[in-house]
Amino acid sequence: MPNHWILSFACDDRAGIVHAITGAIVACGGNITESQQFSSADTDRFFMRLQVEADAPREDFERELAPVVERYDMQWQLDDVGRPLRTLVLVSKAAHCLNDMLFRQRAGQLAVDIPLVLSNHPDLGDLAAFYDVPFEHAAVTDAESKAAFEARVLEVVEQHDIELVVLARYMQILSPELCERLAGKVVNIHHSFLPGFKGANPYRQAHTRGVKLIGATAHFVTSDLDEGPIIEQSVVRVDHTKTPAQLVAIGQDEESRTLTKAVQWFSEDRVLLDGARTIIFQ
Amino acid sequence: MPNHWILSFACDDRAGIVHAITGAIVACGGNITESQQFSSADTDRFFMRLQVEADAPREDFERELAPVVERYDMQWQLDDVGRPLRTLVLVSKAAHCLNDMLFRQRAGQLAVDIPLVLSNHPDLGDLAAFYDVPFEHAAVTDAESKAAFEARVLEVVEQHDIELVVLARYMQILSPELCERLAGKVVNIHHSFLPGFKGANPYRQAHTRGVKLIGATAHFVTSDLDEGPIIEQSVVRVDHTKTPAQLVAIGQDEESRTLTKAVQWFSEDRVLLDGARTIIFQ
Amino acid sequence: MPNHWILSFACDDRAGIVHAITGAIVACGGNITESQQFSSADTDRFFMRLQVEADAPREDFERELAPVVERYDMQWQLDDVGRPLRTLVLVSKAAHCLNDMLFRQRAGQLAVDIPLVLSNHPDLGDLAAFYDVPFEHAAVTDAESKAAFEARVLEVVEQHDIELVVLARYMQILSPELCERLAGKVVNIHHSFLPGFKGANPYRQAHTRGVKLIGATAHFVTSDLDEGPIIEQSVVRVDHTKTPAQLVAIGQDEESRTLTKAVQWFSEDRVLLDGARTIIFQ
Amino acid sequence: MPNHWILSFACDDRAGIVHAITGAIVACGGNITESQQFSSADTDRFFMRLQVEADAPREDFERELAPVVERYDMQWQLDDVGRPLRTLVLVSKAAHCLNDMLFRQRAGQLAVDIPLVLSNHPDLGDLAAFYDVPFEHAAVTDAESKAAFEARVLEVVEQHDIELVVLARYMQILSPELCERLAGKVVNIHHSFLPGFKGANPYRQAHTRGVKLIGATAHFVTSDLDEGPIIEQSVVRVDHTKTPAQLVAIGQDEESRTLTKAVQWFSEDRVLLDGARTIIFQ
Repeated sequence: MPNHWILSFACDDRAGIVHAITGAIVACGGNITESQQFSSADTDRFFMRLQVEADAPREDFERELAPVVERYDMQWQLDDVGRPLRTLVLVSKAAHCLNDMLFRQRAGQLAVDIPLVLSNHPDLGDLAAFYDVPFEHAAVTDAESKAAFEARVLEVVEQHDIELVVLARYMQILSPELCERLAGKVVNIHHSFLPGFKGANPYRQAHTRGVKLIGATAHFVTSDLDEGPIIEQSVVRVDHTKTPAQLVAIGQDEESRTLTKAVQWFSEDRVLLDGARTIIFQ
Repeated sequence: MPNHWILSFACDDRAGIVHAITGAIVACGGNITESQQFSSADTDRFFMRLQVEADAPREDFERELAPVVERYDMQWQLDDVGRPLRTLVLVSKAAHCLNDMLFRQRAGQLAVDIPLVLSNHPDLGDLAAFYDVPFEHAAVTDAESKAAFEARVLEVVEQHDIELVVLARYMQILSPELCERLAGKVVNIHHSFLPGFKGANPYRQAHTRGVKLIGATAHFVTSDLDEGPIIEQSVVRVDHTKTPAQLVAIGQDEESRTLTKAVQWFSEDRVLLDGARTIIFQ
Repeated sequence: MPNHWILSFACDDRAGIVHAITGAIVACGGNITESQQFSSADTDRFFMRLQVEADAPREDFERELAPVVERYDMQWQLDDVGRPLRTLVLVSKAAHCLNDMLFRQRAGQLAVDIPLVLSNHPDLGDLAAFYDVPFEHAAVTDAESKAAFEARVLEVVEQHDIELVVLARYMQILSPELCERLAGKVVNIHHSFLPGFKGANPYRQAHTRGVKLIGATAHFVTSDLDEGPIIEQSVVRVDHTKTPAQLVAIGQDEESRTLTKAVQWFSEDRVLLDGARTIIFQ
Repeated sequence: MPNHWILSFACDDRAGIVHAITGAIVACGGNITESQQFSSADTDRFFMRLQVEADAPREDFERELAPVVERYDMQWQLDDVGRPLRTLVLVSKAAHCLNDMLFRQRAGQLAVDIPLVLSNHPDLGDLAAFYDVPFEHAAVTDAESKAAFEARVLEVVEQHDIELVVLARYMQILSPELCERLAGKVVNIHHSFLPGFKGANPYRQAHTRGVKLIGATAHFVTSDLDEGPIIEQSVVRVDHTKTPAQLVAIGQDEESRTLTKAVQWFSEDRVLLDGARTIIFQ
């Protein structure tokens, strides 16, 4: 069985990058099985994701890569294809997103390793138990309990070397400090409407305005923006006959699918950041 | 050949409405070929659209309807199926929406009668000429020329008894007075993004934010709202590789299709107003 | 709390039907909350579905309906809104469709009452147990065990007065006799491709031909047709990079959603038969 | 202004290909602005498409490429970005596909150069004239006139060095000899249904079967297959209320969009053949 790696990197856009990188691959007898690249005209940055098969050990490949990543000052990551992503999931009461992720994980369609589901409500303990995933619950009712909850998040992140924190309908706003600490590592899902609605109960507002499309957006969580970089979006048609409750059910479906897709892409190193936007190497 | 009518109406929701209306249809030997209704829980209004085939003359049907529409205090409209909608089209320079409407009209897929295309730029005169539609051009450069342009709009509306004014990428904002005068009779198309963007060049903003969906919204024009009641919306997927110019091309496609669909529904009396939202009887 | 009924019926298309039916509704003080109708030009049949709210008891409404349904020789059904559909689910090994149905049932989005999940493999027992649904397993390996399995199906149908049998990726072909006995009561899901593929492993064939869309079709099961009347279809885009395994995963998603939607519509009496095709009153 | 080329190639999949190709790019100071590749597990072929910007003249780049394409026995093509594709369009009576292509060409969204529209009916001459495209008409009524028509096709292909022949609803079947002669150079559009329908008037059949999706497939024309390799497919939802005429209108929309998209991808060298399927480098 040969090794199968994912190499992804970003660097300033200059001539010769691909030639240099593929030189390192050739040097250890590797074969490229998948490759995507993108030159950002906005930031003059170059992004690339490669899947490489090779019989050589990983050390050899890293040794060949070393001078290249230094010469081009690359931000880079080397990973094994199919390695489960160490993922912490935060939830509240709504089950739909968690159910979708756990079902797909068990079905072998989502490579995540979830050492813990952490919640501010006890409701989803049974669902986690059915899928043999540890579940922990701590109420968040005031500043103190919120701080304790976030401390526990950071503790779990440290302890399990968590790579991604998924807010699967976790209904608390993270503190700016936590956002900062986990920048680029927290993904959230929220409903999306055209036009957007401010304030409480957007589904009711959407109903009142008679919108014809409702959807969901999966995005990175940031502290200083209302919304971080968008990873994935989807919508579905609705009409005037749908009650607010039906809009909610339809919206939840889109939320589940959209969030799971974003997590999957992240787990496969397909999500790269280019300023305020994402490069998705599907 | 029997007559074929569209009857649409709105009234307060009470028991017996459908029974009463269909009584009038039975009384002139009519047959219902299409029927949709909707009870709005928000406004307690009842909406209905019927297509009726009958050998009886229209006067007979109207005589049977008279006591019913009075009893239920209906806002109602009786029309012949397939009658072309008297439509005034306002354009500026962009051809895509006008081309789509005129092509479909000639193909027999859009029942509109366009006595005039009115523009603040001369660019689309050739396209109108190809489709044998009168075209008129008057620059709008200041308050005076704008007032003159709007006066001409009202004159055409009067003269041709215009039923719908279509802003097919007409790039001037209508005055509140004109909006008021033509309330419920002016439809506009604009691009739509998740999230929405304020300010100039939204396609560039969409590019910068890396949105994954772009679309279009056809809506009624109102004076006191940023956006009037939504008639139709659509979106299409995009990704990080699309340049702002490509986003514009993709967006124009959605604009054309969405606007034409809205005009078609309006021409078939399928668009009813329920407060701030539309009932679309497809 | 007033009663809330669904009345659906089909009859030959003649003048006066709606007037007569709504007369019965008016007679017991009922209010129409939803209504759809359709005149089939193919078969000259008239189809209607009404939701009616009334304080009167059901017997009163039925007494008012009696002369109407007789006069027009209607096939009709009167049901309570929200009453769970008595549903038997047949499965084999694949979990995705069953998981989706059970999750939505628990979430209150799918009004079904499932007295039994019957399978020819033991694999999905745990999933059923998690959702507290009885599960029974009997291998189907030859003509005899197949006959026994189908006898058990009929027994359950009788015993629980089953209204719908859902083949949720049940991988055995039903005997013509069973199809006949349960005509219009069995819904199946299968993958759908453009163009269609015959023979084994259609996902591999789809891969080989490089199809750009894959999807699913939910349809009634009939004995004398390759495919019975279509209830719902959906597709999703794919491209050349997808492996056969990925196509399977994507296809399963569409299967789950499409089947659940078909069951939901059936449970709400929204699916009527017009010859070889369905009328779906969404 | 630097040169901007598209290089696309296919060869047996071996180690070192990308390194070798990018070596040639580096050697003439080129920069990669877009790149896609694909390794086909079915055929063990490697496919790549590159966009390269360089100040060097084309001869220099070709000289650097020469040893690489020889070493790997590549089928390759080097083109200028944005060069209009020399395209012959065949039509009959239906205008929708031709209208869409010509409108987009004029709008600068479709880089084709159309020296002739050739038709077996005179109907679309006016449309071609509006867009200043030469139009020629020759009836096809028997074997002789068909042979003459096809001879004229070949003559035009020779004379204008045509790269793509687009069957924009041309309603005659091409002879096997012509298919052979123009293999990989003729693209056709046809309606697509789930399930597929044989025989005349598929829209009527689709109506009778009550299909819920109709669409279009753009594909290469081949002599020995019912359908050649698929380039693009799309579908749209329909329901039981649509008449056969409405299904036709909806289907034509999908046909126009799908065909134009296929032509655009071809014009940008994004369509490569891998056995019976296409690699689309979007």
